[in-house]
Parts: sequence; structure tokens; C-alpha cells
Amino acid sequence: MRLLLVNSNTSDFVTAKVAAAARDAAAARTEIVPVTGRFGARVISTRTELAIAEHATIDLLAEHAPGCDAVLIAVSYDVALWAAREMLDIPVVGITEAALLTASMLGTRIGVVVFGKRVLPIYRERALQMGIGDRIAGWRAVESTAPYAAGDQSEADALTIAAVRDLVERDGAEVVVLTGAVMAGVPPRLQPHVDVPLLDGISCGVKQAEALAALEPAKPRSGSLAPLPQREMVGVAPAIDALFGHPSNNKKD
Amino acid sequence: MRLLLVNSNTSDFVTAKVAAAARDAAAARTEIVPVTGRFGARVISTRTELAIAEHATIDLLAEHAPGCDAVLIAVSYDVALWAAREMLDIPVVGITEAALLTASMLGTRIGVVVFGKRVLPIYRERALQMGIGDRIAGWRAVESTAPYAAGDQSEADALTIAAVRDLVERDGAEVVVLTGAVMAGVPPRLQPHVDVPLLDGISCGVKQAEALAALEPAKPRSGSLAPLPQREMVGVAPAIDALFGHPSNNKKD
Amino acid sequence: MRLLLVNSNTSDFVTAKVAAAARDAAAARTEIVPVTGRFGARVISTRTELAIAEHATIDLLAEHAPGCDAVLIAVSYDVALWAAREMLDIPVVGITEAALLTASMLGTRIGVVVFGKRVLPIYRERALQMGIGDRIAGWRAVESTAPYAAGDQSEADALTIAAVRDLVERDGAEVVVLTGAVMAGVPPRLQPHVDVPLLDGISCGVKQAEALAALEPAKPRSGSLAPLPQREMVGVAPAIDALFGHPSNNKKD
Amino acid sequence: MRLLLVNSNTSDFVTAKVAAAARDAAAARTEIVPVTGRFGARVISTRTELAIAEHATIDLLAEHAPGCDAVLIAVSYDVALWAAREMLDIPVVGITEAALLTASMLGTRIGVVVFGKRVLPIYRERALQMGIGDRIAGWRAVESTAPYAAGDQSEADALTIAAVRDLVERDGAEVVVLTGAVMAGVPPRLQPHVDVPLLDGISCGVKQAEALAALEPAKPRSGSLAPLPQREMVGVAPAIDALFGHPSNNKKD
Amino acid sequence: MRLLLVNSNTSDFVTAKVAAAARDAAAARTEIVPVTGRFGARVISTRTELAIAEHATIDLLAEHAPGCDAVLIAVSYDVALWAAREMLDIPVVGITEAALLTASMLGTRIGVVVFGKRVLPIYRERALQMGIGDRIAGWRAVESTAPYAAGDQSEADALTIAAVRDLVERDGAEVVVLTGAVMAGVPPRLQPHVDVPLLDGISCGVKQAEALAALEPAKPRSGSLAPLPQREMVGVAPAIDALFGHPSNNKKD
Amino acid sequence: MRLLLVNSNTSDFVTAKVAAAARDAAAARTEIVPVTGRFGARVISTRTELAIAEHATIDLLAEHAPGCDAVLIAVSYDVALWAAREMLDIPVVGITEAALLTASMLGTRIGVVVFGKRVLPIYRERALQMGIGDRIAGWRAVESTAPYAAGDQSEADALTIAAVRDLVERDGAEVVVLTGAVMAGVPPRLQPHVDVPLLDGISCGVKQAEALAALEPAKPRSGSLAPLPQREMVGVAPAIDALFGHPSNNKKD
Repeated sequence: MRLLLVNSNTSDFVTAKVAAAARDAAAARTEIVPVTGRFGARVISTRTELAIAEHATIDLLAEHAPGCDAVLIAVSYDVALWAAREMLDIPVVGITEAALLTASMLGTRIGVVVFGKRVLPIYRERALQMGIGDRIAGWRAVESTAPYAAGDQSEADALTIAAVRDLVERDGAEVVVLTGAVMAGVPPRLQPHVDVPLLDGISCGVKQAEALAALEPAKPRSGSLAPLPQREMVGVAPAIDALFGHPSNNKKD
Repeated sequence: MRLLLVNSNTSDFVTAKVAAAARDAAAARTEIVPVTGRFGARVISTRTELAIAEHATIDLLAEHAPGCDAVLIAVSYDVALWAAREMLDIPVVGITEAALLTASMLGTRIGVVVFGKRVLPIYRERALQMGIGDRIAGWRAVESTAPYAAGDQSEADALTIAAVRDLVERDGAEVVVLTGAVMAGVPPRLQPHVDVPLLDGISCGVKQAEALAALEPAKPRSGSLAPLPQREMVGVAPAIDALFGHPSNNKKD
Repeated sequence: MRLLLVNSNTSDFVTAKVAAAARDAAAARTEIVPVTGRFGARVISTRTELAIAEHATIDLLAEHAPGCDAVLIAVSYDVALWAAREMLDIPVVGITEAALLTASMLGTRIGVVVFGKRVLPIYRERALQMGIGDRIAGWRAVESTAPYAAGDQSEADALTIAAVRDLVERDGAEVVVLTGAVMAGVPPRLQPHVDVPLLDGISCGVKQAEALAALEPAKPRSGSLAPLPQREMVGVAPAIDALFGHPSNNKKD
Repeated sequence: MRLLLVNSNTSDFVTAKVAAAARDAAAARTEIVPVTGRFGARVISTRTELAIAEHATIDLLAEHAPGCDAVLIAVSYDVALWAAREMLDIPVVGITEAALLTASMLGTRIGVVVFGKRVLPIYRERALQMGIGDRIAGWRAVESTAPYAAGDQSEADALTIAAVRDLVERDGAEVVVLTGAVMAGVPPRLQPHVDVPLLDGISCGVKQAEALAALEPAKPRSGSLAPLPQREMVGVAPAIDALFGHPSNNKKD
Repeated sequence: MRLLLVNSNTSDFVTAKVAAAARDAAAARTEIVPVTGRFGARVISTRTELAIAEHATIDLLAEHAPGCDAVLIAVSYDVALWAAREMLDIPVVGITEAALLTASMLGTRIGVVVFGKRVLPIYRERALQMGIGDRIAGWRAVESTAPYAAGDQSEADALTIAAVRDLVERDGAEVVVLTGAVMAGVPPRLQPHVDVPLLDGISCGVKQAEALAALEPAKPRSGSLAPLPQREMVGVAPAIDALFGHPSNNKKD
Repeated sequence: MRLLLVNSNTSDFVTAKVAAAARDAAAARTEIVPVTGRFGARVISTRTELAIAEHATIDLLAEHAPGCDAVLIAVSYDVALWAAREMLDIPVVGITEAALLTASMLGTRIGVVVFGKRVLPIYRERALQMGIGDRIAGWRAVESTAPYAAGDQSEADALTIAAVRDLVERDGAEVVVLTGAVMAGVPPRLQPHVDVPLLDGISCGVKQAEALAALEPAKPRSGSLAPLPQREMVGVAPAIDALFGHPSNNKKD
């Protein structure tokens, strides 16, 4: 299967890091097809950048989803996730959604570590939206940008381990999710230092996308995810225009 | 005060209709400054169009908010509402938010009428996000596009009245919100035919924006609504670029 | 417009302080009409006193609401709020309700400061009743009665600032409500010392009452807020008796 | 034990009916001490009357609770329940609370029948306040005032049976509560006609009051139910005044 | 009345201790009939042991319920509670359920102390299942096995008192439940040292079982608690077999 | 990988049917290892049978889990799911859990069809326990036992299709789960007749088990899922005894 890996950030470094981790997690016959945002923030870390990225994600999907079997939104805010599910007739998975759902099968209460206090509320809103908020044991913010660049990760690792331990000790977390696409590949490195399973979004997302693709679920024909109607758009990329004029052009062959 | 009225749709007809209703609702000294989206759907009615409109709204705000005292997001999905609150240091109100909050002071349980079954889930998610979902008595979808054009509204009116009565009779609604920017000005016409107060988003939104502007609330300096940091953006409009490079340029004089 | 300001406490000091703050917050054409409870506690601070104040509030409204355009319940427990909405056909706003709803448009998560640990649960119940409990980031009780009297407020101010900062730092509050009618006028004094917007109930309540009055919402004719039926009452004030015998006597002219 | 049965209505007919039912439900050694409100509505059926009854209940308790071992608030709105728990140091039970808690041990989901659509929202708010709202299967309003007077009950019975059956059939109720003090004694008469257990508030309330009295729980000395402080009151009955001046005068001997 | 006291543990020491406490709490005419599990853990303290105890409880009930008037599940996990309510036509009460419901009539917010951090999540799930989770102020785990054996309890007492005080001080608990069947009889000993009422499951459970038995509620004939159908079972005890073959054999005479 | 397929029912017919469906859903390298309960109901359809099956499931797992890489609880009540996660150090998935989580990635609101009104409440409790209850659009019970035997399924199919359509039309379901292990293989047959994706537990469960196994999550070493302690058991099967005496004997090689 071909799995489109959508990095709505405009950072090729992040795309490369995430794609490598996705390939590690993928089954032998899964081909990872990574793409990077054409416009917007290098690394989304504000609500304003996220709003712009909604459009950038639609733009990437319109261009690159045709020919793929499933999509992984590889941005931890699960940007444009439900819009993607509406516009496409292949399964779409978000990495934070995938991690939280996977976590819900491994522990009764889930701890979540996010990078940067500023964005913590966005993740909390995401969990609420998923309807899984009651399963969350607690949240911790780690202040470090090290994971977004190459180089020494030891300080970020130490902060993350401390956050996980605190979630376990004080909030009773039985499993912990490390959010952020750049946490891909980190759990195995930190796992020996903590007492509960650690998960990252990319690994969980790849497995969930493979699982959904194998199930070949039908495309909804009613409700808010029904195929796009024909509509006149203004000032958008030709691939987006095509979505609304030729609603079948993003189907699998 | 100058109140920026943001229509993230690309339909000038809708902007004109909404601006007229906003002027009717506004206090004598409130100047309504209407703007229309530069790109995206004529009238947003899918999740995909809404995702694009997130960007279009940021684009409008970056260009037009400077010099205004408050913003009214005049699209009933309250598009980009929290991003707007982050990027600006003036109050921002969404029309559906305003109508639901106003309704919560007029009846214990709130009925909501939406136009089009397809978009009903989006409003439900909006209420959940506001944290006010427990106050909702019920939802009804009216299938009519008449309000989006000039011409005879009698059939749409009859459907709306029936929906309101059903919400009152079966679900115990004590107040009803008519969503959709184009419902502006409709409540007085239908009010004589139903037993509970009717509200529309534009009237409520104008009053809430005036109320917030009068309170002159401080701009948060911490949390997810703190001023935007300096950031390098890719491929966005110059006004957006300026937001991230010169964070103070959208302040009131 | 004439705005009836109901202080259900029996303290004229509090009424005067609150009326002055309400006049500061009011629009030029809003006339503030303050009234003080005829019986009950000087300053309500127990559930028992609050139960008595329910009656005292009905008593004040029956006597003074005729001729007014809106009512502000200027007691932070929003005493008799829904009963008032039933008995009157003009808008009624509670100060804590107004502050929480206003806060919900300024920050994603709301911190609340109350004066006195003993009454904190009553506010929590109030938020639950409003259906807005999920938006509350946290609660803090400040132990000080200084605001209920003239004199030095510096210690109370310091305690309040510390409580606000703690709500921001530990609970992620993005806006904070200072409950208690006597907090009227305090936010501007403390605002420079904290990083998120501060709100008080009187200012917010005046603006919400003005907003509702301008909307001129219909009186519900069905449900739990429908006009009072004719009923025989025992041992109540003549004005209350009149409410049940002549249900139209509290209408606006 | 002496069980104070508080009818906050001013109808002696209701008090007599309820007291008789309470005596039927009571254990051999339980003495029922019925009292009737001194002021307010004959039968509370609006929010305004309920607000007045809050005071009337405090008035009754201040006068009659001394010398009793427990209190049953025999009004189905559980009027002034938590205030009573604060002002007294003996257990206090509300009849609707008692019925809902009892029901929660007999069926997974609880149906509730109320008399009068107008007051249904008040019961719903009551269940929400108890924190037991998630256990409620559904609500039905029966429009009949027959139970509030002597005479033929066959029509009211038929409506009630139909409501119960509908709750079972459509909403999956596994136990049904008949609210309203005047439903006392009704369940045995209707039980043969329905498939799930029926409960009324008076029977459940008497048993819960006996249970709590037997447990002899300690009076809280902190929190919102701690003993009343000394306070100056204005214009209240001497017995209420005494409560605030001599906080120990309502203790059991 | 005959009250079957079901200890699903296989420890006779615990049964004896609990039966003694139950007799202390019981009314004069209540006969306590204690039984001990035939198989499974000495003292259940893992999920796996609890799963086995579900069966052991059915086994005990099938054998011993005939001839009794009510059942008290005297294991603090309320093991097999709803199954018991299905299989029997007499009232069944669980001790933790009884304590939490009783607590909900004594304080607005309930603190809970459990013995052993490992099992705390099980109690939390229990409260959620009851639908009463919103009333819980907080949880504390005490690490001590002393209560499960004879001997000095002073250290366990000190830890418990500290946990209760912390629940009161930090979480605003107004009543505290001490879970664990072996806490029977402990509240009176610790009550003088804390400011809010303390409850244990056995005392509350006995009173609730007596209350339910006195109400003589009907057996549901529809829903998930309807009488067991005739079914072929494999490899179970004869008494269980009989339940499914002769559904009336566990009725009261 | 070896996937243990646990049928806690004692019906070999059901095991065979379910195993066949599991093999259809499984990846090429997944070996399905089906086992059938040693004692209890042929097909669990009451709470009492389910309580017995908790033990039967532990019994099967103790005997058969060693040497496997993951477990699928192939009973739609997800019997003993969390106990299994505690006692084993390999991933465990429940079929209804798997279907609901998968559904949550395919539609915003989930409809659920169950077989038999009597057991519907058990599924509702299951969804509540998962914390995903807010995502459920509605429930429908189909009364048919046809799927539990070979033979004509056309009537059951027609009832199921009607139930699904009603969930879509009236409740706005965007995806529907068909509960019951015997629904394995049914979705493809009914999918052409309905507008939203259909899911069954076995297919979803196999994919989720494969996904979890591939992630190789760590075994929790703290919390309620930590390895079983050494304990003395009474009257249980030797394999269960061994679990508590030799906690490492169920590890993967």
C-alpha cells in the first residue's frame, strides 16, 4: 500500500525525520510517500499558524492523495483531519488521534507530554474533540525545542523522563503519549527509564493507517463526510478546484 | 468604535446582507467595517471549504484588523475564532458563540436550527468546544438555500417555524438560535409565530462585540493566546508575514 | 434604559459601592436603579442566608422591576436568577453568570477567585448549573473580608494577585474572574500585575444587561419561564401577591 | 426517633396526605412530625414560588428541627436541602434525592415521571445537581392535578401508567420514580400494571432518613456545611435569628 | 429479615470481622447470614482475582440467597453487583455503592480513601459506573495491609487520618468514605480526629439493605435485570445450573 | 505472530465461525489460535453468565496465552479485558473496543447495533467505561438469534439494515458498528444497502491486535496493570495458580 505522509509544516528537516521513523514502523509492503507543506510556518506552534496549515493540508491532499491507499496526517495537531476524511475516499489517520486511541488499549488512564506550555491547550481541545477526554490522567509540558533539530537530545530526554514519571506518580497514568511528530522514534530510547508504556504518534499512526487500509471501509454517502458537492471556488490551487468540480478524481484506482 | 465584520465566504451578496443587519443591530456610535474573503468558497458548506476559510480569515484579519476596536467573525462556524484571539489584541466574537451565550441567559435549554443536515455535526462540535453542550435541548436541520439569495422566503420561513415549534414541543427548548449569518434580521419576522425567544448570530454578535470592546479587556501575555512570536513564514500574504515579524502592528492606536 | 440593580444583601454599604461601579461601567444612556434587600443577611456568606435571600430577591423584584428595562442581580451567587426570568418579562442577568460568559470569549480556560473557602463550593455548583463547568481551569479561595468595607485593600490585593498568578501558572487559566459584587472596580487596579485579563461581575453584568435589553428578546410563553399563572399565595408581600393575581403588572410600558 | 416532615407548601391537605404515607412507610419506632409552610404557595409549581419556599423552609426548620433526630424535606424539589444540611446537625434527606438514589440501586437506568411539563426542567436541574444525571433514561410529564386533591385518580393513574410504559419501552428505563410528594402511596396501586419497580419520594425518603439517623454521622466542622457563624440578620423570624446568634441551639439533646 | 452477607474473598478472618461489624450496624430484627467464597483469592487485590470473584459470587448467591430477604455484597469492589440484581428477586446492595450514595446525602463533595495505590483505579471506575463521578472531590491511597489482620492499627490509623485531612484541606471534601470491607467499625475510632463525617461500606450497606428490603421493590420483568431465562450451562455448580433451569427457585417464600 | 482468539462462550459453533472470519481478516503471517470456554453459557446473554465468563476467560488465558504474541477477546462484551491486560505481558484487544475505536476514525458520530434489547445496556456501559460514550450517536436492538446458527440470514439482515438506516437518518450516525462476535463477516454483505461504513468487531479486533503486537509496547510495571504479585489462591485451575506463583510464566519467549 501507498501511505501518504502529510507534513503540513514547511520544514523539510521535520519531513525527513518523520518519514524515516514512519518507514521504521511500517510493514514491509507499505510505501511511505512523504510531502511537505507549500506555505505556512516552518514548525506550527501557534493557533494562527495552525489555521493557515488547515488550508496547506487541503492543498497537499488535493495534489498528492490520488493514487494513495491511506493518509497519515503527520502533524501532532491532527490538522484538517475531518476535512481530509470528507474530501477523500481513502482512510485518513491523525498521529495524535492514533496515539491516544492506541494508548486507550494499553492503560486505563493516559498521560500526555507536549512540547511547549503554549500549545498544551490545543492538545487538550483535541482530546475533548475526540471524546476521549475522560481517559486522560494528566498533561505535562516540556520546554525544549531540541527535538526539532539534529543534535544532543539528552536534556530534552531528561525533561521528558521526569514528566512521564510525574504523570505516573502523581496522576496515576498507566500509559504515556509523547506528542509531536518529532517524538517519532523516541519511545524505545526512553522506555527503559520509565514504568509504563510510551507511545509516539508516528508509529501508532502508521499502524492505524495500515489497519484501516486493510479493512477497506466504505466511503460515507451521507452526513458531514459525504463526497464533496460540485462548487465554484475562488482563488484556490487547481488541484483544489478539481476536487469540487470532479468529485471522483481522488479515488483509488 | 470600529467593528470589523469578517465574512470569510467569498460572496459579496452575503457580506452586504450581513452588514445591513449588523448596522441595524449596532449602537449609534458603532461603525461596521465589512470585508469579504479573498479566496475559498462562495458559501462555506463543507469541512474542506471551512479548512480553507481558516486561512482566508487570517488573511482578512491581518489586512483589515489594524485600526479596528473589535472583530465579529460573521460566519456561523466561528471560523478561526481562537486564532483570531491569539493574533489580535482587540476583542473577537463569533456569531454562533454569541448567539449561544446570549441564549443561555434567556432559557434554561437551548434549541438550535441549522440550514442543511450535512453541516449539523459541525455546529454540534462547535457547541461541544464551547463547553456549553449540556445546555442544548436539541438540533433541527432545515433543508433550504433560499436565505442565501434574494427572493421569496416564505417556504424557508415555514420550515423554520416548524423546526422551532418541534424543538419547543418535543425537546423542551426555552429559547432557539437560528444559525447562519443569513438568518440576520429573520427573528423579528418569525417571532410572532413561536412561543420562545428567537436569536440570530449577527444581532447577538454585534451586541457582544460592543460589550467586550467597552470592557477593554487586557491582552493575555501568557498561554495559548499570548502575542505571536517572531517567526519565519513561507508563501503567505505580506500582511500575514508582518504579523509574525512585527508583532505589534495590529494594535489599536 | 433603566437597569434595576438588585443587591439582595441588606447592606447599604455594599449597594452604594456596587452602584457606583455599575455607573462607571454603564453606557451614557443607562440609568442605574439600585435597591437593597428588606430582610436577611448583611452580606450573604452561608447557604442558609442564601435560601432566605431567594425570597428577598423576589420581594425586591416584585416591588421595583415595574418600569425598568432590565435587571442585574448584583449578588455573586446569582440568587433567584431563573425565578426572576420567570416572573419578569424583561431581561435578567446575574453578575457571576455574566462574568463567566464574558470570560469564555476571552480565554479558553477560566480561572475563578472567590472570597472565602466556605463559599467556594457554591460557586462551583453555579458553574455546573450554567453548563460551563468544563471551561473552568481552577478555583482559588482568598481569605479576606477587606473588600466588604472601606479601608486599606493592599493585603487583599496581594492575596488576589497571588491567587491569579497561581491559576495562570499551575492551572493554565487564560482569563480570571474575580467573584463577589465588591470586586467591582478592582480589575483595573490589579491588571498591571498579572498576565491574563481580569474580569469582575458588575462590569460584565452591566454590559450584558445592556446587550440583552437592546436585543429586546421575546418573553417565553411556554416552558419553565412562561408567565406566572394566577395563584393564591399565603403571607407574602402585596407586590408578590399582585404578581400571581395580575400577571401583566410587571410589564414595561 | 422523631422525623421532622417538612411540607414547604402551605397546603394542609398535602401535609396530611404526605404524613399518612410517611407513617405507613416508617418503622415502628419512628415518630413522624409533620409541619406546613407558614407562607408562600399552596402547592409550589413555579420557580418564583420555589424561591419563596426556600425561605419558608428555613423558617420551618429553625422553629421545628430542635428535638428531632432527622429531617425529611417532603417537597419534591428538595427545597433548601443543602441549606438545611448546613444549619442543622442532624441528617436531612430530600424526597426526590432519596427516590433517585434508591432507584440507582434497583435499575441501571432510571425513568422519571413528573406532574406538569412546566416543572420538568426543575427536576432535570435537580438530577444534574445531584451528579446523577447520567443514570437518567428519560423524563415524562403527566398533565394532571388530580393527585393534589381527594377524588377519582383513575385518569391520572392511566396517564402515569402510560408514561412509565413508554419510559420502559422507548428509553430502556429499568426502574421509574414518580416525583411529587402526593405520589406517596401510589406505587403499590400502579405496580401490577408495569414491568419495572416504581418508587415514590416519601417512602424512599422515610427509609433514607431512618438509615442516616441510625448511622449518626458527624456534623461537618469545615466546608460549606460547617455550623453557622454568628451573624446579624435583618427582619427575619426570631427562630432564624437565634440560629445565627446561638449556633448550638438546634442540636439534638 | 435475613440479610445475606457475601464475602467473595476466601478469607474467613475477613468474613468474621465484617459480620461482627454488620451485626453492630444492623437493626434488632435483622439477622446477618455471612458466607465466604469457595474459590479464588484470600483477599482480592488485583483485577484478575476480581474476575475470578465474579464467578465465586454467583456461586455463593445461587447457593445461599434462597430464603434471604436482601443481599449485601461485602466486598468493596461491589463484585458481580448487577449480575446479582439480575439473578435474584430480592434487593442487592454493594458496600462501596452504599457508602458513596450515603455520602452524597452528607456532603456536596466526597473524598475517598482506598487501601493500596494499585487498586485505586478500580474504585474510580466503580464511581464512574455509578454515574456519581462528578461528586468525587478526590482520591487518596493508603499503603497498609494492617486492617486485613488482627493487631496494632495505629500506623494505619495515622495514615488514614492524614489522607482524610488532605482530602478536606486540598480537595474540599465535605464527607469521606473509607473503602474496604475491613474498614467496618473504623469510622467511630477516627472521627474525633477529622472535621468531616467518615463512612464505611459495611455500616452504610447494612442500612441501605434494610431500607430496600422494607420498600419491597418489584422485580423487573423487562430490561437487563429481568429474570434469567432457561439456559443450558456447562461445567458450573448445581445451584447455578438450577438458576437457569428453574428460574423461580431463588424466590422468597 | 500467533494471535490467541478467546471465545469465552462454550459454543464450538461460534468459535469456528469467528475463527474463520478472523483468518479472513488476518495478515498473511498471522496465525489464529482459537480457544473455547471450558465452563459457562453456550452463548452469553445475561449479566449472570457474563460474571461466570470473567472466570472462564482468566482460565483460558492462563492455559493458552503462553507462546502467543497477542490476544483477541472475541466476545462482544470484551469480557475480562482489563484483567487480561494485567495478567499478561502481551497486548490484549476486545472486539467491541476495537470496533468502536476504529469507528471513531471513520465517522464523527457512531451508531451501534446490538442483538437483543436485553443486553443493550451492557454495551452502553461498555462504551461509558471506554470513555467514548460522547461519540455514540445512538443504539438499536435487533431481535434475532439467527446469526448464532447456520441457516438463512435474510430476515436478520433485513432487520439490521433497517436499524442502520434508522441510525443514519434519525440520529446522524456516520459509521455503524455491528456488535456480536457472530457479526464477523457480515459487513461486506450488508454494506451495499447502507450509506455509511459498517464495521464488525472481529475484523477490527484482528487488525488492532496486529497493530499493537507490531508496536511491542512495554508491560506496565506500576499501576493497576502491573504484573501479578505472588498470592495464595483457593480452588482454582493449576494454570491460574501458576500465574500467581510464577508471575513470569506467561511471557513471550
